[in-house]
Amino acid sequence: MAPPTPRLVVPIDLTKKPWDQKLPLHNRWHPEIPATAAVTSGELFRTEMVDWTGGAIIDDDSALDVKSVDLTTVHYLSGPIRVLDTDGVPAKPGDLLAVEICNLGPLPGDEWGFTASFDRENGGGFLTDHFPCATKAIWYFEGIYAYSPQIPGVRFPGLTHPGIIGTAPCKELLNIWNDREREVEENGLQTLKLCEVLHSRPLANLPSTKGCVLGKIQGGTPEWERIAREAARTIPGRENGGNCDIKNLSRGSKIYLPVFMEGANLSTGDMHFSQGDGEVAFCGAIEMSGFLELKCEIIRGGMKEYLTPMGPTRLHVNPIFEIGPVEPRFSEWLVFEGISVDESGRQHYLDASVAYKRAVLNAIDYLSKFGYSKEQMYLLLSCCPCEGRISGIVDSPNAVATLAIPTSIFDQDIRPKNKIPVGPRLVRKPDVLKCTYDGNLPITKNLSATM
Amino acid sequence: MAPPTPRLVVPIDLTKKPWDQKLPLHNRWHPEIPATAAVTSGELFRTEMVDWTGGAIIDDDSALDVKSVDLTTVHYLSGPIRVLDTDGVPAKPGDLLAVEICNLGPLPGDEWGFTASFDRENGGGFLTDHFPCATKAIWYFEGIYAYSPQIPGVRFPGLTHPGIIGTAPCKELLNIWNDREREVEENGLQTLKLCEVLHSRPLANLPSTKGCVLGKIQGGTPEWERIAREAARTIPGRENGGNCDIKNLSRGSKIYLPVFMEGANLSTGDMHFSQGDGEVAFCGAIEMSGFLELKCEIIRGGMKEYLTPMGPTRLHVNPIFEIGPVEPRFSEWLVFEGISVDESGRQHYLDASVAYKRAVLNAIDYLSKFGYSKEQMYLLLSCCPCEGRISGIVDSPNAVATLAIPTSIFDQDIRPKNKIPVGPRLVRKPDVLKCTYDGNLPITKNLSATM
Amino acid sequence: MAPPTPRLVVPIDLTKKPWDQKLPLHNRWHPEIPATAAVTSGELFRTEMVDWTGGAIIDDDSALDVKSVDLTTVHYLSGPIRVLDTDGVPAKPGDLLAVEICNLGPLPGDEWGFTASFDRENGGGFLTDHFPCATKAIWYFEGIYAYSPQIPGVRFPGLTHPGIIGTAPCKELLNIWNDREREVEENGLQTLKLCEVLHSRPLANLPSTKGCVLGKIQGGTPEWERIAREAARTIPGRENGGNCDIKNLSRGSKIYLPVFMEGANLSTGDMHFSQGDGEVAFCGAIEMSGFLELKCEIIRGGMKEYLTPMGPTRLHVNPIFEIGPVEPRFSEWLVFEGISVDESGRQHYLDASVAYKRAVLNAIDYLSKFGYSKEQMYLLLSCCPCEGRISGIVDSPNAVATLAIPTSIFDQDIRPKNKIPVGPRLVRKPDVLKCTYDGNLPITKNLSATM
Amino acid sequence: MAPPTPRLVVPIDLTKKPWDQKLPLHNRWHPEIPATAAVTSGELFRTEMVDWTGGAIIDDDSALDVKSVDLTTVHYLSGPIRVLDTDGVPAKPGDLLAVEICNLGPLPGDEWGFTASFDRENGGGFLTDHFPCATKAIWYFEGIYAYSPQIPGVRFPGLTHPGIIGTAPCKELLNIWNDREREVEENGLQTLKLCEVLHSRPLANLPSTKGCVLGKIQGGTPEWERIAREAARTIPGRENGGNCDIKNLSRGSKIYLPVFMEGANLSTGDMHFSQGDGEVAFCGAIEMSGFLELKCEIIRGGMKEYLTPMGPTRLHVNPIFEIGPVEPRFSEWLVFEGISVDESGRQHYLDASVAYKRAVLNAIDYLSKFGYSKEQMYLLLSCCPCEGRISGIVDSPNAVATLAIPTSIFDQDIRPKNKIPVGPRLVRKPDVLKCTYDGNLPITKNLSATM
Repeated sequence: MAPPTPRLVVPIDLTKKPWDQKLPLHNRWHPEIPATAAVTSGELFRTEMVDWTGGAIIDDDSALDVKSVDLTTVHYLSGPIRVLDTDGVPAKPGDLLAVEICNLGPLPGDEWGFTASFDRENGGGFLTDHFPCATKAIWYFEGIYAYSPQIPGVRFPGLTHPGIIGTAPCKELLNIWNDREREVEENGLQTLKLCEVLHSRPLANLPSTKGCVLGKIQGGTPEWERIAREAARTIPGRENGGNCDIKNLSRGSKIYLPVFMEGANLSTGDMHFSQGDGEVAFCGAIEMSGFLELKCEIIRGGMKEYLTPMGPTRLHVNPIFEIGPVEPRFSEWLVFEGISVDESGRQHYLDASVAYKRAVLNAIDYLSKFGYSKEQMYLLLSCCPCEGRISGIVDSPNAVATLAIPTSIFDQDIRPKNKIPVGPRLVRKPDVLKCTYDGNLPITKNLSATM
Repeated sequence: MAPPTPRLVVPIDLTKKPWDQKLPLHNRWHPEIPATAAVTSGELFRTEMVDWTGGAIIDDDSALDVKSVDLTTVHYLSGPIRVLDTDGVPAKPGDLLAVEICNLGPLPGDEWGFTASFDRENGGGFLTDHFPCATKAIWYFEGIYAYSPQIPGVRFPGLTHPGIIGTAPCKELLNIWNDREREVEENGLQTLKLCEVLHSRPLANLPSTKGCVLGKIQGGTPEWERIAREAARTIPGRENGGNCDIKNLSRGSKIYLPVFMEGANLSTGDMHFSQGDGEVAFCGAIEMSGFLELKCEIIRGGMKEYLTPMGPTRLHVNPIFEIGPVEPRFSEWLVFEGISVDESGRQHYLDASVAYKRAVLNAIDYLSKFGYSKEQMYLLLSCCPCEGRISGIVDSPNAVATLAIPTSIFDQDIRPKNKIPVGPRLVRKPDVLKCTYDGNLPITKNLSATM
Repeated sequence: MAPPTPRLVVPIDLTKKPWDQKLPLHNRWHPEIPATAAVTSGELFRTEMVDWTGGAIIDDDSALDVKSVDLTTVHYLSGPIRVLDTDGVPAKPGDLLAVEICNLGPLPGDEWGFTASFDRENGGGFLTDHFPCATKAIWYFEGIYAYSPQIPGVRFPGLTHPGIIGTAPCKELLNIWNDREREVEENGLQTLKLCEVLHSRPLANLPSTKGCVLGKIQGGTPEWERIAREAARTIPGRENGGNCDIKNLSRGSKIYLPVFMEGANLSTGDMHFSQGDGEVAFCGAIEMSGFLELKCEIIRGGMKEYLTPMGPTRLHVNPIFEIGPVEPRFSEWLVFEGISVDESGRQHYLDASVAYKRAVLNAIDYLSKFGYSKEQMYLLLSCCPCEGRISGIVDSPNAVATLAIPTSIFDQDIRPKNKIPVGPRLVRKPDVLKCTYDGNLPITKNLSATM
Repeated sequence: MAPPTPRLVVPIDLTKKPWDQKLPLHNRWHPEIPATAAVTSGELFRTEMVDWTGGAIIDDDSALDVKSVDLTTVHYLSGPIRVLDTDGVPAKPGDLLAVEICNLGPLPGDEWGFTASFDRENGGGFLTDHFPCATKAIWYFEGIYAYSPQIPGVRFPGLTHPGIIGTAPCKELLNIWNDREREVEENGLQTLKLCEVLHSRPLANLPSTKGCVLGKIQGGTPEWERIAREAARTIPGRENGGNCDIKNLSRGSKIYLPVFMEGANLSTGDMHFSQGDGEVAFCGAIEMSGFLELKCEIIRGGMKEYLTPMGPTRLHVNPIFEIGPVEPRFSEWLVFEGISVDESGRQHYLDASVAYKRAVLNAIDYLSKFGYSKEQMYLLLSCCPCEGRISGIVDSPNAVATLAIPTSIFDQDIRPKNKIPVGPRLVRKPDVLKCTYDGNLPITKNLSATM
């Protein structure tokens, strides 16, 4: 006679702004952000989330909202949720928090999402030097499937997952994050070759009081001010999990998170209807509001037992994951390869990021031969269930990365065939929604491409 | 009444040395290496190959052969094979050569292989700064399965594939390779941050007459001398395919290679019984001799039609692949994550190589809790069918890479469980075969690891 | 800006009885049952359904409700739904109705189900001669997973599907059904060998006014009386689809139904959280209330074009199905075989039903060695995602049928091992809920079984 | 240093007749047929086999060899192989013999096979009343793929397996077989309704001295005569495994066979490159010669421990199987349904054989709309990797059976589409090889089919 319906611990009212929700949201990591809910080990509960921008991107005919988006406000997270065992004793630092994703999906009545690339002056993306404009595609959901009016001829089942799931850092870990990221922000351009090739800016996202939302912490107080200056941005994935963007964390997955403070303080957000490995356009998944049905278990002492630190302190650990048994199943894949030679022809040394960039560029150019614009394919490869692999990482000087695309998501046969010209060459109209790029940075061109 | 048996176009006699084979092998890329065989479009043919070292590593009780291996002689390739259409007209520059892998496997009577990491002074590996010693594990094959006396408790089906498949470069492409790789060899240490973290040496592998084998080119002649000085090493994957080490190129796969010279001049080698994404130990697949049953098709003009150059010349292209329908099937995966923070705690900028290094280190340490030595797991993760993914590449400053391991390859349950201490903690004896490291380079330690 | 949320066309209020729903349900097939809703081709819509018994089986500690269930009232169906094209023209006889299942699941707040075997005097089941008692197991859902307090040690993801989906028959087809089923009811015991082995009763389920619910047809009228006497029971699957119990018709599937009357009049019901092939216990799936999100397309003239009649009239056709890309994925299966020799040792001739019975009996007995009662395994094999195959149907006199069970649904290793005694031999308590059997029919025993 | 190459224990010389092989073959089951080889538990060994007819069907342009084939001579089996443990003690009655299939394939140099349906007067097939003529299609293998000149437009990877694998019966079990099969042969037509619908003849295959081959037993001796009169035919699968035709018993599978006599006396044969569930054309797999690489393990007492008798004696058991992890992977299936109503419109009672017959007929007629003859599809559905399922077996009076076909084996899209007329309607020439039917039995027609 057990009540099987999951208990709703964090409700979202989509008619309200992120900062007006009944249980306040937060968009920073900090140990002093108070828990807004509590759950017990073994209990099935439900948490709801706004989309990562909190409604800043809307279902309209323009990409202007993308161009001008205020990225200091992201990502809006639900929680923190305090986790107790069945005796009421909270999770403790050094424990491992096993979180099972029993179910997830879009919020009822809000079955749509968006994929976007940011303006190069405002966040950019993996290929922002090629595609400096803000672009946007809207996706509508038909149950497990998504389709976009802006990218016709494509439909695929979602491998839905939370982009962000993480525990709160302790103060010591927070300091480590802020120190190391400040270092790269300050010295990166001088020392990192990669910056020239990847071109994303900023190099890091340091704490900022602008746009900061801290849950139950009262705004305008000295406490708020102090915490806002310390609290880590949610952009990168880190030791606590966070924005790890692992596309396979779908139904049936299990996530083993290190616990850094009493209660674990689990936060979730950035729901993705679907994402490709790498999420290359940056706002590249199909971003949506959504819900998670979760079950937590506390493995006492598990952090020490299972996770070996990989760095100067015992806090330099990473979560572990189990992938669930229910994923869309594809049997045919077309694979694009990249090596660590950049678009200028320059050799890089075992650099998987450069190799993956070339693989993605190869895929975009190839698919554009089938009637698509390159911007359409840039967004598609960000959000469809494509697989980005590090195939070879030891054969100096080239890393080899591959991007595998399930062919059945297209309504035409995209494989190379022994007839010329290629395929239907249908012009796939309309195109993505697109803004102008008004900056001055040079655009990277494929020097010898004919189209 | 068609004779279905594939025609053997390149035979190998395993009782003979690589340089004594009936059809001479080659271990360099150069357009002037003459074809040793010819095939017709649509014809099913068989080519046989020695293992990449040509028998330098043997099935014995010592890793000394690994430590002292002469890497100037690798990889021994079979071919080149000239490809004609059914009218006898050869493939031409600008065509695409579609090569279907209809079957493959170890050579009958030679059903074993090896996985090794090289000494840090002689080739190293992805984690050579952690594991500087030469190590070796022998694998025996039982049909589709492999097991190793040196890594007990593990058995898995092979996702067998050729590590190297490629067409001959034209002279112009060869010059591009030599120029850009010389540049990194000469200037790399000064400019590339990554070198400090990955530590592999040499940074590139430039042409050398030492160890050079050039097929039908007569040794000792001025022609041989000239070609040997120009011919590219086979270590890295490049525009012609080559050592791409894509583990999924197994039975039923199709590879679309650009054609750079008349006849295409297809070469194959470096057969792998199995490999993990990244092939991290360098000699990291299960290396073996083997055979390929192939079928070629010429897509006239297909290189120009399907491949967009990504660099300063029309030759800066990469092959495309289709993955076949027959792969080992796993339903449960344990996933390890890494972010682009290195072992010293230093932040790197969107660096997937650093992130993947941390993911692999995390996995090795985790698995060593189940009774294995770290060297055993380093070799295992090089050669078992594990998947290395670029999960997030846009969330500055952290790239997120993941390594997914199929749990069923172990004879124990390796998932985290709610009981301490972990698992059976069996000491899995014996260990890998191992040499001493006699160099002076510092070893990278996990500063706060307790074991 | 299209509203993506599916339109709710048939709502269910679980606090009300089946006959008190806002849109009346029906539990018979008849062309004169009026449509209660209408949808347009291409429209995404949602229909909700009570469980097949309309709430007769409850979540309690007894199987008495199963023993005394009134089977004249099943299955309660939602609809009929009339289907129009985008011009408002209804589907017509001879068309094909393509129904895509975009999503489905339990009704929110009602996340539980039941599996039961009926008393031999009241419906029975495939093995009712072995298991004559009414039994029941309750299943609770945790997102994609189900577990039962009555069958401990088992948990599995659901392959959720509607047991019944069908179009309304025309009068001519209805007559064909009634005639042929009356024939078997009246003459079956005399002529069909199979009846002795399968022992289910009744042989057919003919129209009955008792328990009949006819949607908008006003009860107590002569029209109601006439239709009730003619309307076909919903028990068997037939030419219109109906109770086909195909477990793979889950998310992303497409069902091509013949249209026999204007508007097609689509009805759905009998939602299953999960079912094994064969649904052997009869009430054997995990029966639940639920919802479907569907999209219809009319293929004009498609019935004649695609479906060839297989019988004396053009109405003797069957639906076609496409299986969707999202199913739970299992990599390891234990398979039980049966041949068409019955429990008395008597040889049957190429009889797949007898062979499958023996395969199921073999599986039940095998699994009972791992601590389970046979009744637990009978119910489990009815509802878990096991596969029932016709392996050989030509090797006189034995048909060979197989039952494949995914091993990962158990929390212990159920494979045969080289140690005796078997497995943990844990007694898995508690057992299924169970009634007495008060009838007089003989029970079939395994004559030489030792346990 | 272990020699990994499997030891060849039963060699086949394809230039010789079955009865001239070095190790004599056998085509009957009898405990007194002496073992021709012996293997040790844990040893990897290889056994080779002629095709099931021993070369009676050849790669030519006629089906005359099929029409006149002498079925008293089939199936030619290799072995028996005696199995000992590592102490040299043979397997004993009551043990379980675990046989792992490590590898298998066609014999080198003989990479082709055939699929055939027999003449109705000489063996017939599942649909012999529809297709009474002898037909034949030749298949050529290209590594994992097969294609047929007689069935153009189709190519698929093989799920290769042995049709027959079994242990020798003891005398008591042999008597049980002969008694029960004689009973059905003598009384079947009078009592079994199914015979009228399935029409195959003979009803059973009783021992016959004609065509009998008994391995090492000297022909012409009284002993040979006695054994030949007792020895069971190999046509049906039985308690010892035998001709179970389970298509999934491919690489990596494990078969747990009951041991009925000392040494187990394992025999194998009837290699199939590929087979569909049911093997409906009777000679319906892609029949070939081939090899198996096996590894045996003896589970002492395992038969009693794991297998529960299902009949009057302790010998009424069936083998258990584990399916291996390497199978061709398909993501899209088109499914045909059948119910237990026969072609005359008559209702049968829960008869899965009749339901499956209708599903197969539905599939054949459907696919013939895409340019194929029905005979082409009859043979194709016999041998391609299609899945035959018992979907519902409890909903009186209809059993529901389904046949699922992977769509990617065709070079055209065979799914129903919203355009008329259907598909390319290419006439797929040439057709299967076909003989006349010269008998007098009536042909079953689809009464209302228009084509």
